[in-house]
Amino acid sequence: MYVLHYAPDTASLAVRLVLADLRLPHELRLVDRDGGELASPAYRALHPLGKIPVLDTPDGPMFETAAILLYLADRHGHLAPAVGSHERAAFLKWLFFTSTNLHASEMELFYPERVAGPEAVEALVPRAAERVRFCLTALDQAAAGSPAWMPAGEPSLMGWYLGMLVRWLSTFPPGHPGRIASAEFPALHRVFAMLEARPAALEVAADEGLGPTIFTNPAY
Amino acid sequence: MYVLHYAPDTASLAVRLVLADLRLPHELRLVDRDGGELASPAYRALHPLGKIPVLDTPDGPMFETAAILLYLADRHGHLAPAVGSHERAAFLKWLFFTSTNLHASEMELFYPERVAGPEAVEALVPRAAERVRFCLTALDQAAAGSPAWMPAGEPSLMGWYLGMLVRWLSTFPPGHPGRIASAEFPALHRVFAMLEARPAALEVAADEGLGPTIFTNPAY
Repeated sequence: MYVLHYAPDTASLAVRLVLADLRLPHELRLVDRDGGELASPAYRALHPLGKIPVLDTPDGPMFETAAILLYLADRHGHLAPAVGSHERAAFLKWLFFTSTNLHASEMELFYPERVAGPEAVEALVPRAAERVRFCLTALDQAAAGSPAWMPAGEPSLMGWYLGMLVRWLSTFPPGHPGRIASAEFPALHRVFAMLEARPAALEVAADEGLGPTIFTNPAY
Repeated sequence: MYVLHYAPDTASLAVRLVLADLRLPHELRLVDRDGGELASPAYRALHPLGKIPVLDTPDGPMFETAAILLYLADRHGHLAPAVGSHERAAFLKWLFFTSTNLHASEMELFYPERVAGPEAVEALVPRAAERVRFCLTALDQAAAGSPAWMPAGEPSLMGWYLGMLVRWLSTFPPGHPGRIASAEFPALHRVFAMLEARPAALEVAADEGLGPTIFTNPAY
Protein backbone atom coordinates (compact mmCIF):
# COMPACT_ATOMS: atom_id res chain seq x y z
CA MET A 1 0.00 0.00 0.00
CA TYR A 2 1.30 3.42 -0.99
CA VAL A 3 0.84 6.44 1.27
CA LEU A 4 1.12 9.82 -0.42
CA HIS A 5 2.03 12.80 1.76
CA TYR A 6 0.31 15.52 -0.20
CA ALA A 7 -1.28 18.95 -0.30
CA PRO A 8 -3.82 20.08 -2.92
CA ASP A 9 -2.34 21.60 -6.08
CA THR A 10 1.31 21.04 -5.18
CA ALA A 11 3.89 18.70 -6.76
CA SER A 12 2.05 15.77 -5.18
CA LEU A 13 -0.56 16.23 -7.94
CA ALA A 14 1.43 14.37 -10.61
CA VAL A 15 2.01 11.42 -8.29
CA ARG A 16 -1.63 11.36 -7.26
CA LEU A 17 -2.77 11.42 -10.88
CA VAL A 18 -0.51 8.49 -11.72
CA LEU A 19 -1.64 6.49 -8.69
CA ALA A 20 -5.28 7.14 -9.60
CA ASP A 21 -4.92 6.47 -13.31
CA LEU A 22 -3.07 3.18 -12.73
CA ARG A 23 -5.70 2.25 -10.09
CA LEU A 24 -2.99 1.58 -7.54
CA PRO A 25 -4.36 1.26 -4.00
CA HIS A 26 -3.12 4.18 -1.94
CA GLU A 27 -3.86 6.32 1.06
CA LEU A 28 -3.60 10.09 1.20
CA ARG A 29 -2.04 11.95 4.11
CA LEU A 30 -2.64 15.69 4.05
CA VAL A 31 0.47 17.60 5.09
CA ASP A 32 -0.26 20.49 7.43
CA ARG A 33 1.76 23.12 5.58
CA ASP A 34 0.26 26.09 7.40
CA GLY A 35 0.93 24.38 10.72
CA GLY A 36 4.63 24.10 9.92
CA GLU A 37 4.72 20.34 9.40
CA LEU A 38 7.25 20.61 6.56
CA ALA A 39 9.82 21.89 9.08
CA SER A 40 9.00 19.28 11.71
CA PRO A 41 11.66 16.69 12.65
CA ALA A 42 9.25 13.90 11.72
CA TYR A 43 8.76 15.23 8.19
CA ARG A 44 12.44 16.10 7.78
CA ALA A 45 13.24 12.49 8.62
CA LEU A 46 11.21 11.58 5.53
CA HIS A 47 12.60 14.38 3.35
CA PRO A 48 15.67 16.41 4.36
CA LEU A 49 14.50 19.43 2.33
CA GLY A 50 10.98 19.34 3.78
CA LYS A 51 9.20 19.33 0.45
CA ILE A 52 6.04 17.76 -0.91
CA PRO A 53 5.53 15.00 -2.06
CA VAL A 54 6.80 12.04 -0.11
CA LEU A 55 5.51 8.60 -1.06
CA ASP A 56 5.74 5.70 1.38
CA THR A 57 6.38 2.56 -0.65
CA PRO A 58 7.05 -1.11 0.13
CA ASP A 59 10.67 -0.16 -0.56
CA GLY A 60 10.74 2.73 1.91
CA PRO A 61 9.81 6.41 1.76
CA MET A 62 10.67 8.24 -1.45
CA PHE A 63 11.01 11.89 -2.36
CA GLU A 64 11.70 13.91 -5.54
CA THR A 65 8.67 14.00 -7.82
CA ALA A 66 10.45 12.62 -10.88
CA ALA A 67 12.10 9.83 -8.89
CA ILE A 68 8.73 8.74 -7.52
CA LEU A 69 7.11 8.83 -10.95
CA LEU A 70 9.95 6.80 -12.47
CA TYR A 71 9.78 4.27 -9.64
CA LEU A 72 6.03 3.79 -10.14
CA ALA A 73 6.30 3.51 -13.92
CA ASP A 74 9.06 0.91 -13.73
CA ARG A 75 7.50 -1.04 -10.87
CA HIS A 76 4.11 -1.37 -12.56
CA GLY A 77 5.30 -1.54 -16.16
CA HIS A 78 3.26 1.39 -17.42
CA LEU A 79 3.65 4.98 -18.57
CA ALA A 80 7.28 4.84 -19.74
CA PRO A 81 9.51 2.83 -22.09
CA ALA A 82 11.04 -0.11 -20.19
CA VAL A 83 14.73 -0.60 -19.41
CA GLY A 84 16.32 -2.31 -22.39
CA SER A 85 13.97 -0.81 -24.98
CA HIS A 86 15.33 1.46 -27.69
CA GLU A 87 13.03 4.23 -26.51
CA ARG A 88 14.36 4.27 -22.95
CA ALA A 89 17.23 6.61 -23.85
CA ALA A 90 15.04 9.44 -25.14
CA PHE A 91 12.65 8.99 -22.24
CA LEU A 92 15.42 9.35 -19.65
CA LYS A 93 16.99 12.37 -21.29
CA TRP A 94 13.70 14.27 -21.44
CA LEU A 95 12.70 13.21 -17.92
CA PHE A 96 15.93 14.60 -16.45
CA PHE A 97 15.75 17.62 -18.75
CA THR A 98 12.31 18.36 -17.33
CA SER A 99 13.26 17.76 -13.73
CA THR A 100 16.57 19.63 -13.61
CA ASN A 101 15.71 22.47 -16.00
CA LEU A 102 11.97 23.09 -16.37
CA HIS A 103 10.82 22.07 -12.88
CA ALA A 104 13.83 23.77 -11.26
CA SER A 105 13.27 27.01 -13.20
CA GLU A 106 9.62 27.02 -12.16
CA MET A 107 10.69 26.78 -8.52
CA GLU A 108 12.80 29.91 -9.16
CA LEU A 109 9.73 31.62 -10.60
CA PHE A 110 7.50 30.71 -7.68
CA TYR A 111 10.02 31.23 -4.87
CA PRO A 112 12.52 33.76 -6.25
CA GLU A 113 13.35 35.13 -2.82
CA ARG A 114 14.57 31.71 -1.70
CA VAL A 115 17.06 31.55 -4.54
CA ALA A 116 18.83 34.83 -4.10
CA GLY A 117 17.00 36.86 -1.46
CA PRO A 118 14.37 39.58 -1.80
CA GLU A 119 16.80 42.03 -3.43
CA ALA A 120 17.28 39.79 -6.48
CA VAL A 121 13.65 38.98 -7.25
CA GLU A 122 13.31 41.57 -9.98
CA ALA A 123 16.43 40.36 -11.78
CA LEU A 124 15.63 36.69 -11.38
CA VAL A 125 11.97 36.40 -12.39
CA PRO A 126 12.18 37.42 -16.07
CA ARG A 127 15.26 35.24 -16.58
CA ALA A 128 13.62 32.23 -14.97
CA ALA A 129 10.53 32.79 -17.14
CA GLU A 130 12.73 32.84 -20.21
CA ARG A 131 14.31 29.52 -19.17
CA VAL A 132 10.87 27.99 -18.61
CA ARG A 133 9.72 29.08 -22.05
CA PHE A 134 12.88 27.77 -23.67
CA CYS A 135 12.46 24.35 -22.04
CA LEU A 136 8.81 24.12 -23.04
CA THR A 137 9.66 25.04 -26.62
CA ALA A 138 12.27 22.26 -26.78
CA LEU A 139 9.88 19.75 -25.24
CA ASP A 140 7.06 20.77 -27.57
CA GLN A 141 9.27 20.26 -30.61
CA ALA A 142 10.47 16.90 -29.32
CA ALA A 143 6.89 15.81 -28.57
CA ALA A 144 5.52 16.74 -31.98
CA GLY A 145 6.05 13.29 -33.50
CA SER A 146 4.17 11.48 -30.72
CA PRO A 147 7.30 9.78 -29.33
CA ALA A 148 7.16 6.68 -27.15
CA TRP A 149 8.05 8.76 -24.06
CA MET A 150 4.90 10.85 -24.55
CA PRO A 151 2.47 9.40 -27.07
CA ALA A 152 -0.29 11.75 -28.17
CA GLY A 153 -3.03 9.19 -27.62
CA GLU A 154 -2.32 7.49 -24.33
CA PRO A 155 -1.19 8.33 -20.80
CA SER A 156 2.50 8.65 -19.99
CA LEU A 157 4.62 9.65 -17.03
CA MET A 158 5.92 12.63 -18.99
CA GLY A 159 2.42 13.73 -19.92
CA TRP A 160 1.19 13.79 -16.33
CA TYR A 161 4.39 15.43 -15.10
CA LEU A 162 4.47 18.15 -17.76
CA GLY A 163 0.73 18.74 -17.44
CA MET A 164 1.19 19.63 -13.79
CA LEU A 165 4.19 21.86 -14.50
CA VAL A 166 2.34 23.78 -17.21
CA ARG A 167 -0.78 24.07 -15.06
CA TRP A 168 1.16 25.99 -12.42
CA LEU A 169 2.20 28.66 -14.92
CA SER A 170 -1.39 29.72 -15.44
CA THR A 171 -1.57 30.86 -11.83
CA PHE A 172 0.50 33.96 -12.51
CA PRO A 173 -1.50 37.17 -13.01
CA PRO A 174 -1.77 38.68 -16.50
CA GLY A 175 1.39 40.60 -17.36
CA HIS A 176 3.64 38.39 -15.21
CA PRO A 177 6.47 36.99 -17.37
CA GLY A 178 5.84 33.50 -16.00
CA ARG A 179 2.24 33.42 -17.18
CA ILE A 180 2.30 30.82 -19.92
CA ALA A 181 -0.66 28.84 -21.27
CA SER A 182 -0.48 25.31 -22.62
CA ALA A 183 -2.08 26.44 -25.90
CA GLU A 184 1.23 28.10 -26.80
CA PHE A 185 2.70 24.60 -27.17
CA PRO A 186 0.48 22.63 -29.53
CA ALA A 187 2.01 19.16 -29.14
CA LEU A 188 1.97 19.40 -25.35
CA HIS A 189 -1.49 20.94 -25.36
CA ARG A 190 -2.91 18.02 -27.30
CA VAL A 191 -1.51 15.54 -24.76
CA PHE A 192 -2.80 17.57 -21.82
CA ALA A 193 -6.31 17.80 -23.28
CA MET A 194 -6.40 14.03 -23.68
CA LEU A 195 -5.12 13.40 -20.15
CA GLU A 196 -7.30 15.86 -18.26
CA ALA A 197 -10.46 14.23 -19.66
CA ARG A 198 -9.59 10.82 -18.22
CA PRO A 199 -11.77 9.66 -15.33
CA ALA A 200 -8.82 9.54 -12.94
CA ALA A 201 -7.94 13.16 -13.65
CA LEU A 202 -11.55 14.29 -13.23
CA GLU A 203 -11.81 12.46 -9.90
CA VAL A 204 -8.61 13.92 -8.52
CA ALA A 205 -9.52 17.37 -9.85
CA ALA A 206 -12.91 17.24 -8.14
CA ASP A 207 -11.37 16.13 -4.86
CA GLU A 208 -8.72 18.88 -4.86
CA GLY A 209 -11.12 21.50 -6.22
CA LEU A 210 -9.18 22.14 -9.41
CA GLY A 211 -11.96 22.40 -12.00
CA PRO A 212 -12.65 20.10 -14.97
CA THR A 213 -9.78 21.17 -17.25
CA ILE A 214 -6.81 21.04 -14.91
CA PHE A 215 -4.10 21.46 -17.54
CA THR A 216 -5.46 23.39 -20.50
CA ASN A 217 -7.69 25.86 -18.67
CA PRO A 218 -6.95 25.65 -14.95
CA ALA A 219 -9.33 26.95 -12.30
CA TYR A 220 -8.10 27.94 -8.84
CA MET B 1 30.04 2.14 -29.90
CA TYR B 2 29.55 5.15 -27.65
CA VAL B 3 30.81 8.60 -28.62
CA LEU B 4 31.25 11.07 -25.79
CA HIS B 5 31.16 14.77 -26.65
CA TYR B 6 33.38 16.08 -23.87
CA ALA B 7 35.73 18.75 -22.59
CA PRO B 8 38.34 18.20 -19.86
CA ASP B 9 37.12 18.72 -16.30
CA THR B 10 33.49 19.41 -17.17
CA ALA B 11 30.37 17.33 -16.46
CA SER B 12 31.53 14.86 -19.09
CA LEU B 13 34.04 13.62 -16.50
CA ALA B 14 31.55 11.42 -14.62
CA VAL B 15 30.41 9.79 -17.86
CA ARG B 16 33.98 9.25 -19.00
CA LEU B 17 34.93 7.68 -15.68
CA VAL B 18 31.99 5.27 -15.88
CA LEU B 19 32.78 4.34 -19.50
CA ALA B 20 36.42 3.74 -18.57
CA ASP B 21 35.72 1.83 -15.36
CA LEU B 22 33.20 -0.46 -17.06
CA ARG B 23 35.66 -0.94 -19.95
CA LEU B 24 32.99 0.06 -22.45
CA PRO B 25 34.41 0.78 -25.91
CA HIS B 26 33.98 4.45 -26.67
CA GLU B 27 35.35 7.32 -28.70
CA LEU B 28 35.98 10.81 -27.42
CA ARG B 29 35.02 13.93 -29.33
CA LEU B 30 36.49 17.12 -27.92
CA VAL B 31 33.96 19.96 -28.02
CA ASP B 32 35.46 23.25 -29.15
CA ARG B 33 34.03 25.40 -26.36
CA ASP B 34 36.27 28.39 -27.02
CA GLY B 35 35.37 28.25 -30.71
CA GLY B 36 31.67 28.57 -29.87
CA GLU B 37 30.69 25.02 -30.78
CA LEU B 38 28.15 24.80 -27.94
CA ALA B 39 26.08 27.48 -29.68
CA SER B 40 26.37 25.93 -33.14
CA PRO B 41 23.24 24.57 -34.85
CA ALA B 42 24.88 21.14 -35.12
CA TYR B 43 25.50 20.93 -31.37
CA ARG B 44 22.12 22.42 -30.52
CA ALA B 45 20.53 19.67 -32.59
CA LEU B 46 22.14 17.23 -30.17
CA HIS B 47 21.35 19.26 -27.04
CA PRO B 48 18.89 22.18 -27.07
CA LEU B 49 20.64 23.86 -24.12
CA GLY B 50 24.10 23.49 -25.67
CA LYS B 51 25.68 21.82 -22.66
CA ILE B 52 28.33 19.16 -22.13
CA PRO B 53 28.10 16.15 -22.11
CA VAL B 54 26.27 14.52 -24.97
CA LEU B 55 26.66 10.77 -25.43
CA ASP B 56 25.87 9.13 -28.76
CA THR B 57 24.43 5.69 -28.03
CA PRO B 58 22.95 2.86 -30.11
CA ASP B 59 19.62 4.32 -28.94
CA GLY B 60 20.35 7.84 -30.14
CA PRO B 61 22.11 10.86 -28.66
CA MET B 62 21.56 11.50 -24.97
CA PHE B 63 22.05 14.53 -22.74
CA GLU B 64 21.72 15.32 -19.04
CA THR B 65 24.56 13.84 -17.02
CA ALA B 66 22.38 11.89 -14.60
CA ALA B 67 20.22 10.50 -17.43
CA ILE B 68 23.30 9.24 -19.26
CA LEU B 69 24.72 7.66 -16.11
CA LEU B 70 21.42 5.94 -15.33
CA TYR B 71 21.12 4.68 -18.91
CA LEU B 72 24.63 3.19 -18.80
CA ALA B 73 24.12 1.59 -15.39
CA ASP B 74 20.84 -0.02 -16.41
CA ARG B 75 22.04 -1.08 -19.85
CA HIS B 76 25.17 -2.78 -18.56
CA GLY B 77 23.81 -4.00 -15.23
CA HIS B 78 26.43 -2.33 -13.07
CA LEU B 79 26.83 0.56 -10.65
CA ALA B 80 23.22 0.85 -9.45
CA PRO B 81 20.47 -1.32 -7.94
CA ALA B 82 18.38 -2.88 -10.71
CA VAL B 83 14.72 -2.16 -11.46
CA GLY B 84 12.63 -4.43 -9.25
CA SER B 85 15.15 -4.61 -6.42
CA HIS B 86 14.24 -3.27 -2.98
CA GLU B 87 17.18 -0.88 -3.14
CA ARG B 88 16.07 0.81 -6.37
CA ALA B 89 13.78 3.24 -4.54
CA ALA B 90 16.51 4.77 -2.37
CA PHE B 91 18.87 4.89 -5.34
CA LEU B 92 16.39 6.84 -7.48
CA LYS B 93 15.48 9.30 -4.77
CA TRP B 94 19.13 10.17 -4.06
CA LEU B 95 20.00 10.31 -7.76
CA PHE B 96 17.27 12.86 -8.46
CA PHE B 97 18.04 14.68 -5.20
CA THR B 98 21.63 15.05 -6.40
CA SER B 99 20.72 16.08 -9.92
CA THR B 100 17.95 18.58 -9.17
CA ASN B 101 19.35 20.03 -5.94
CA LEU B 102 23.10 19.58 -5.54
CA HIS B 103 24.14 19.69 -9.21
CA ALA B 104 21.71 22.54 -9.94
CA SER B 105 22.92 24.59 -6.95
CA GLU B 106 26.50 24.12 -8.08
CA MET B 107 25.57 25.52 -11.48
CA GLU B 108 24.25 28.59 -9.64
CA LEU B 109 27.56 28.87 -7.81
CA PHE B 110 29.63 28.61 -10.96
CA TYR B 111 27.44 30.72 -13.26
CA PRO B 112 25.54 33.05 -10.91
CA GLU B 113 25.22 35.78 -13.55
CA ARG B 114 23.28 33.41 -15.80
CA VAL B 115 20.70 32.78 -13.11
CA ALA B 116 19.77 36.32 -12.21
CA GLY B 117 22.13 38.69 -13.97
CA PRO B 118 25.30 40.39 -12.75
CA GLU B 119 23.46 42.55 -10.24
CA ALA B 120 22.35 39.53 -8.22
CA VAL B 121 25.64 37.63 -7.97
CA GLU B 122 26.43 38.86 -4.49
CA ALA B 123 23.05 37.84 -3.15
CA LEU B 124 22.98 34.51 -4.91
CA VAL B 125 26.41 33.00 -4.26
CA PRO B 126 26.28 32.60 -0.45
CA ARG B 127 22.75 31.18 -0.66
CA ALA B 128 23.71 28.69 -3.35
CA ALA B 129 26.75 27.67 -1.28
CA GLU B 130 24.47 27.07 1.69
CA ARG B 131 22.23 24.86 -0.44
CA VAL B 132 25.21 22.88 -1.69
CA ARG B 133 26.43 22.31 1.84
CA PHE B 134 22.97 21.27 3.00
CA CYS B 135 22.67 18.70 0.20
CA LEU B 136 26.11 17.27 0.88
CA THR B 137 25.33 16.96 4.58
CA ALA B 138 22.14 15.02 3.81
CA LEU B 139 23.95 12.78 1.32
CA ASP B 140 26.80 12.16 3.74
CA GLN B 141 24.41 11.09 6.47
CA ALA B 142 22.51 8.84 4.07
CA ALA B 143 25.76 7.29 2.81
CA ALA B 144 27.15 6.55 6.26
CA GLY B 145 25.75 3.02 6.39
CA SER B 146 27.29 1.98 3.04
CA PRO B 147 23.91 1.71 1.28
CA ALA B 148 23.42 -0.30 -1.92
CA TRP B 149 23.19 2.93 -3.95
CA MET B 150 26.72 3.90 -2.86
CA PRO B 151 28.63 1.07 -1.19
CA ALA B 152 31.80 2.12 0.59
CA GLY B 153 33.90 -0.61 -1.01
CA GLU B 154 32.94 -0.74 -4.66
CA PRO B 155 32.21 1.58 -7.56
CA SER B 156 28.75 3.05 -8.02
CA LEU B 157 27.06 5.54 -10.30
CA MET B 158 26.41 7.79 -7.31
CA GLY B 159 30.01 7.61 -6.19
CA TRP B 160 31.39 8.72 -9.54
CA TYR B 161 28.73 11.40 -9.93
CA LEU B 162 29.17 12.86 -6.45
CA GLY B 163 32.94 12.64 -6.69
CA MET B 164 32.88 14.90 -9.72
CA LEU B 165 30.46 17.34 -8.11
CA VAL B 166 32.57 17.62 -4.96
CA ARG B 167 35.77 17.95 -6.99
CA TRP B 168 34.48 21.11 -8.61
CA LEU B 169 33.96 22.82 -5.26
CA SER B 170 37.67 22.73 -4.56
CA THR B 171 38.28 25.07 -7.49
CA PHE B 172 36.97 28.09 -5.59
CA PRO B 173 39.64 30.30 -4.03
CA PRO B 174 40.10 30.30 -0.25
CA GLY B 175 37.44 32.44 1.40
CA HIS B 176 34.84 31.78 -1.30
CA PRO B 177 31.67 30.39 0.32
CA GLY B 178 31.52 27.63 -2.28
CA ARG B 179 34.94 26.26 -1.39
CA ILE B 180 34.15 22.91 0.19
CA ALA B 181 36.49 19.94 0.57
CA SER B 182 35.42 16.32 0.50
CA ALA B 183 37.08 15.72 3.89
CA GLU B 184 34.22 17.65 5.50
CA PHE B 185 31.96 14.73 4.59
CA PRO B 186 33.54 11.55 5.94
CA ALA B 187 31.26 8.95 4.36
CA LEU B 188 31.52 10.58 0.93
CA HIS B 189 35.25 11.13 1.36
CA ARG B 190 35.85 7.43 1.99
CA VAL B 191 34.03 6.51 -1.22
CA PHE B 192 35.90 9.12 -3.24
CA ALA B 193 39.31 7.96 -1.96
CA MET B 194 38.48 4.40 -3.00
CA LEU B 195 37.24 5.46 -6.45
CA GLU B 196 40.04 7.86 -7.40
CA ALA B 197 42.65 5.13 -6.85
CA ARG B 198 41.07 2.80 -9.40
CA PRO B 199 43.06 2.33 -12.63
CA ALA B 200 40.27 3.80 -14.75
CA ALA B 201 40.23 7.00 -12.71
CA LEU B 202 44.01 7.31 -12.83
CA GLU B 203 44.00 6.86 -16.61
CA VAL B 204 41.30 9.45 -17.20
CA ALA B 205 42.92 11.84 -14.73
CA ALA B 206 46.26 11.56 -16.50
CA ASP B 207 44.66 12.15 -19.89
CA GLU B 208 42.72 15.24 -18.76
CA GLY B 209 45.61 16.52 -16.62
CA LEU B 210 43.74 16.36 -13.34
CA GLY B 211 46.38 14.96 -10.98
CA PRO B 212 46.36 11.64 -9.11
CA THR B 213 43.72 12.41 -6.44
CA ILE B 214 40.92 13.86 -8.53
CA PHE B 215 38.27 13.89 -5.81
CA THR B 216 39.91 14.21 -2.41
CA ASN B 217 42.74 16.59 -3.29
CA PRO B 218 42.17 17.98 -6.79
CA ALA B 219 44.87 19.58 -8.86
CA TYR B 220 44.07 22.08 -11.62
